[in-house]
Amino acid sequence: MEIKLNENERIDDLQYKGLKIIQKIDGFCFGLDAVLLANFADIKKGDEVIDLGTGTGIISILIAGKTEAKSVTGLEIQEEMAEMAQRSVKLNNIEDRVKIVCGDIKESVEMFGASKFNVVVTNPPYMNQGGGLLNISDTKAISRHEIKCTLEDVIKASSKLLVPGGQFAMVHRPDRLVDIVWLMRKYSIEPKYLQFVHPSPRKKANLLLIKGARQGGVQLKMMEPLYVYDDNGNYSKEIDDIYSREVRKIE
Amino acid sequence: MEIKLNENERIDDLQYKGLKIIQKIDGFCFGLDAVLLANFADIKKGDEVIDLGTGTGIISILIAGKTEAKSVTGLEIQEEMAEMAQRSVKLNNIEDRVKIVCGDIKESVEMFGASKFNVVVTNPPYMNQGGGLLNISDTKAISRHEIKCTLEDVIKASSKLLVPGGQFAMVHRPDRLVDIVWLMRKYSIEPKYLQFVHPSPRKKANLLLIKGARQGGVQLKMMEPLYVYDDNGNYSKEIDDIYSREVRKIE
Repeated sequence: MEIKLNENERIDDLQYKGLKIIQKIDGFCFGLDAVLLANFADIKKGDEVIDLGTGTGIISILIAGKTEAKSVTGLEIQEEMAEMAQRSVKLNNIEDRVKIVCGDIKESVEMFGASKFNVVVTNPPYMNQGGGLLNISDTKAISRHEIKCTLEDVIKASSKLLVPGGQFAMVHRPDRLVDIVWLMRKYSIEPKYLQFVHPSPRKKANLLLIKGARQGGVQLKMMEPLYVYDDNGNYSKEIDDIYSREVRKIE
Repeated sequence: MEIKLNENERIDDLQYKGLKIIQKIDGFCFGLDAVLLANFADIKKGDEVIDLGTGTGIISILIAGKTEAKSVTGLEIQEEMAEMAQRSVKLNNIEDRVKIVCGDIKESVEMFGASKFNVVVTNPPYMNQGGGLLNISDTKAISRHEIKCTLEDVIKASSKLLVPGGQFAMVHRPDRLVDIVWLMRKYSIEPKYLQFVHPSPRKKANLLLIKGARQGGVQLKMMEPLYVYDDNGNYSKEIDDIYSREVRKIE
């Protein structure tokens, strides 16, 4: 395989069906949230999936590896990241099913058309923009803060991109729960499943996973909490199971 | 103390500062949710508090007992329940601070006036009205189902009854979370604190406690989960603490 690695990049083995990913050594690396989201989304054979803000491409690549989705489109605004994600796709020989597109979520409906996808998955920036302390051209900052798009931009675009009844699946922070639920309902994506992820059983949740249906009926199902570590500091059984399905070894 | 007990009623000792409550033997008895809400609400000296849908009066009586609220008004639509709650207030000699009023939440703003309370507490019916299978004159059904008022009626009235910045505190079911958050924001009560209550650490949450501020800024704080029982089937330390503050012994 002839895939060029730039300086400051490395290849990580996802240890799942031979999947690999290119990441920056000192940049934003994929984390637990991406793995959890790829596991949480409910993707059926033949689905057309879009991953809004794909970053390294990790979620798109995992979904292509584990599901029978017909296609996965990874949209990424940062050229350098999109180009790197594209090389990861090539490295995995999944160009027939995964397409990385460099573009803006706010223009995604014009780019792809309305009602084109069965599933939207997204791991958007978690932080409000904050007060000017950020270096807004910094790659990490763009991945983490709402510099290029807000939560509202993401949810608004998702609603338009989805077919009626289509699924929206997102990982985010619990302290944004009110905004998330408010915006989902505002844009006719009814929340259906909600799961909180806690570092351990005694700690408060630091991630949430939410699934909704475009134009779905009102019916929320709270799921069992997911604990990353057990009381002894080992990975919980649930996380072990997800990792062994998704990624055998993770830094 | 000369308090008449009707047939089918009993007096329960709350084992907290000598507080007592009259309940129906075969009716709707107060439960964990009421005790948790009385503990969760943040009531300051001199506050004027209203308890929407007070039922047996349990929450109003606990709040009068544990806080320095200036007054607690318990509003209850069912005459028979309101009359029983009134006798419980008398039994506790707290008529100077607790007033039970028989009336409809939907007419509460006309009854009490707008912006009159520092705190609203409410343990409203949890269930949507359902499809005609209920006996709508049944006391238990009225306490549990949205027969006399909907969640929207409760939140709408709360917003009007509260002073700007005033606190709304509610206990409800997690499967209504989306409706709760949506309606709170719709009526300008911004959710501020959210806590899920789980039967035990491995089980999904079956109650939620939520506090909001009328016209408050956007900032949600997720609290540590509250587990009722530990993994060994004993009351958790947190619940023990709450019970020993609120109610020493509970059926």
